[in-house]
Amino acid sequence: MKNILKYPAKNTWEILLQRPVLEKANLRNTVQEIFSEVRNAGDFALKKYSEKFDQVNLKNLAVSPEEIEFATKEVSDELKNAIAQAKENIFKFHFAQKEKSVEIETTEGVVCWRESRPIEKVGLYIPGGTAPLFSTVLMLAIPAQIAGCKEIILCTPPQKNGTINPAILYAASLCGVSKIFKVGGAQAIAALTFGTESIPKVDKIFGPGNQYVTQAKQLATEYNVAIDLPAGPSEVLVIADESANPTFCAADLLSQAEHGTDSQVIFIATDEQILEETLAEIEKQVLELPRREIAKITLNSSQFILAKSVEQAIEISNFYAPEHLILAVDNPRNYVCKITNAGSVFLGNYTPEAAGDYASGTNHTLPTNGFAKNYSGVSLDSFVKKMTVQEISKKGILKIGKTIEVMAEAEGLFAHKNAVSLRLKSLQNGI
Amino acid sequence: MKNILKYPAKNTWEILLQRPVLEKANLRNTVQEIFSEVRNAGDFALKKYSEKFDQVNLKNLAVSPEEIEFATKEVSDELKNAIAQAKENIFKFHFAQKEKSVEIETTEGVVCWRESRPIEKVGLYIPGGTAPLFSTVLMLAIPAQIAGCKEIILCTPPQKNGTINPAILYAASLCGVSKIFKVGGAQAIAALTFGTESIPKVDKIFGPGNQYVTQAKQLATEYNVAIDLPAGPSEVLVIADESANPTFCAADLLSQAEHGTDSQVIFIATDEQILEETLAEIEKQVLELPRREIAKITLNSSQFILAKSVEQAIEISNFYAPEHLILAVDNPRNYVCKITNAGSVFLGNYTPEAAGDYASGTNHTLPTNGFAKNYSGVSLDSFVKKMTVQEISKKGILKIGKTIEVMAEAEGLFAHKNAVSLRLKSLQNGI
Repeated sequence: MKNILKYPAKNTWEILLQRPVLEKANLRNTVQEIFSEVRNAGDFALKKYSEKFDQVNLKNLAVSPEEIEFATKEVSDELKNAIAQAKENIFKFHFAQKEKSVEIETTEGVVCWRESRPIEKVGLYIPGGTAPLFSTVLMLAIPAQIAGCKEIILCTPPQKNGTINPAILYAASLCGVSKIFKVGGAQAIAALTFGTESIPKVDKIFGPGNQYVTQAKQLATEYNVAIDLPAGPSEVLVIADESANPTFCAADLLSQAEHGTDSQVIFIATDEQILEETLAEIEKQVLELPRREIAKITLNSSQFILAKSVEQAIEISNFYAPEHLILAVDNPRNYVCKITNAGSVFLGNYTPEAAGDYASGTNHTLPTNGFAKNYSGVSLDSFVKKMTVQEISKKGILKIGKTIEVMAEAEGLFAHKNAVSLRLKSLQNGI
Repeated sequence: MKNILKYPAKNTWEILLQRPVLEKANLRNTVQEIFSEVRNAGDFALKKYSEKFDQVNLKNLAVSPEEIEFATKEVSDELKNAIAQAKENIFKFHFAQKEKSVEIETTEGVVCWRESRPIEKVGLYIPGGTAPLFSTVLMLAIPAQIAGCKEIILCTPPQKNGTINPAILYAASLCGVSKIFKVGGAQAIAALTFGTESIPKVDKIFGPGNQYVTQAKQLATEYNVAIDLPAGPSEVLVIADESANPTFCAADLLSQAEHGTDSQVIFIATDEQILEETLAEIEKQVLELPRREIAKITLNSSQFILAKSVEQAIEISNFYAPEHLILAVDNPRNYVCKITNAGSVFLGNYTPEAAGDYASGTNHTLPTNGFAKNYSGVSLDSFVKKMTVQEISKKGILKIGKTIEVMAEAEGLFAHKNAVSLRLKSLQNGI
């Protein structure tokens, strides 16, 4: 059974809550080489990597309309209904993020506003591996479609038989993805960065991936492509008081633990009994899980902490800045204002993290690795640029002209000053 | 006199509008070395670099309260008044960007919303050099203050006598900057990334700078610090129809040209006479400018294009994605909806770029180098994270539980499914 840390002193939090440090140095060279290859040899390089890494010999990188049609038949009605409800909720929540343009008259005759414009071409990366993450397709393609992105390109590695999981294809076709390509790993990111004969170059790349994909996305930014978020292993921090349900807490902790052996799981309770019961529940529930071996390894590096109060627990959480924060406490809304660093927050006993992962409507692409301190999760904002516009009338320039002249001169920029002086002069002369 | 390009074919635009490619490869090693030094030796390294690069032997890196008091006396009342008006306008425009939290009920009993939280510690970098950019202090510190950032740290290189330009200190003290340090270049960015004995480590770094600073900011992201925007040389694209004023157009183009020899200046007119008169005006006005040598070099690599219509001119502009776009055309508002890629837009004959640089209220930290395709300029959003929150009632989980179960199972994540199943079961059992 896991050790319980009782009332840890503040100066121990840093060590206690340390995340695993990801080794990056060696990856950079490997990924740089893949970038060079793809830049030089295009599709040929992608097919070569597919043979090497995916053990597939691909004729076409692009998924055909027939393949999508076939996938649509493969997906069960039950799953289609589930995807439909999730899509509706995700759509509602992200659609509400549309910004209405509001004109601000900062000085009489000086009117300024913002307008959103879609990022024209976006690339969505969906990893392969054990879990076919069609939910991530929804989380990325739905806001891209709401934003009005012209081209939504999806890359995902092929399975060994050369196909893509039907649920991924179905979700993509449902949410306005323009083109789907069978390519994974750092080479997919390289293709979206430079473009190849088949795959268009994009303006921004989204989506999770392993350490190679992560490094590739970082490298893509050096070639003027934007990315959604720096990535890291997934995390949950659960805060529980005496009103919490240990069965639910254990299930939530385990649903994070099953993600991967590098997942981070932290439990902070204000009640020792709840803590012990949750630990006992974990021991029980873990046995039933297909992915129990992964979960067990994760749990070994997890932390179980006893705190004095919910406030102190939140203080610890703010220090850690978790991707997901569950408040299994009485009157959870009262504490939201105290949360300063978290990706997404789940309130009360009936709001499991899994709800946000799939269907509540919030986005599941969230800041991990402490990035909740300085990054937002993916939202509609991630798929648009906000352009400012200003219109100044003759009266307006008369009102702020002097200010601009004085400031420009003080910065030694006389052409800036002159652009205003000439206008003021023309107005005084009545031209 | 500059060549005029008449009605260039679309397939020539790419070459025509090519930006200078910045050489990065060698800088990375130099900056990496500075990062290592600062990480290891802290303030000692900063002082050593100050001696080497700024020719100053500093006792204290921090600006003292006495220095700020002295600077306040140094700044003229005229400049103080100008700064006050600019501050008010910038404040109004950015304050209006505060997002009101709106609850969305995506399914009955499933309520989701977003809340903004300030990024706790931000670092503002203000370059030294020929122009003391106190206007950039306003553009960064005002939204940081509105956002509620707890620590606003400013770094700027000392002048040769060891002091900072009084206008910079005055603007900083006016806008809630917590601490000011005399340190510039890549070493300042390193200090903000790792922290030193004097300088706090921050969560996000803002501000312009030379190629070393730009490379340093890029490198900072590899150490989990966020940055405002990737940087590049400043740009303006002016579109003029027959209603434009050649004197004003020339002045606006020159105000961009005086920034630096790498500035980009593009003029597109639909009227040949306006084009020629603007060129003649440039020849005349440039002679009067203190920074005329810089402006002349910039103008050599500028482009003067004759287009068929304002629509075509905007198409060219969208392709280029300028930082600043001036529409010196009749009824400019009619064309705003056609603009897809631009940092900030200036409408009509009385809205010079200089207004946005200083005092209209919009932010002057904007996407250059084509980044208007995939990045927004700095706004209040740049200083906050948006956290999502969800609260699901018993009724709500009964409504979306099945969807989550089906999707989790289809992704092979049974612990995720279980987190919902256990809750549904407890409700069915009436626990």
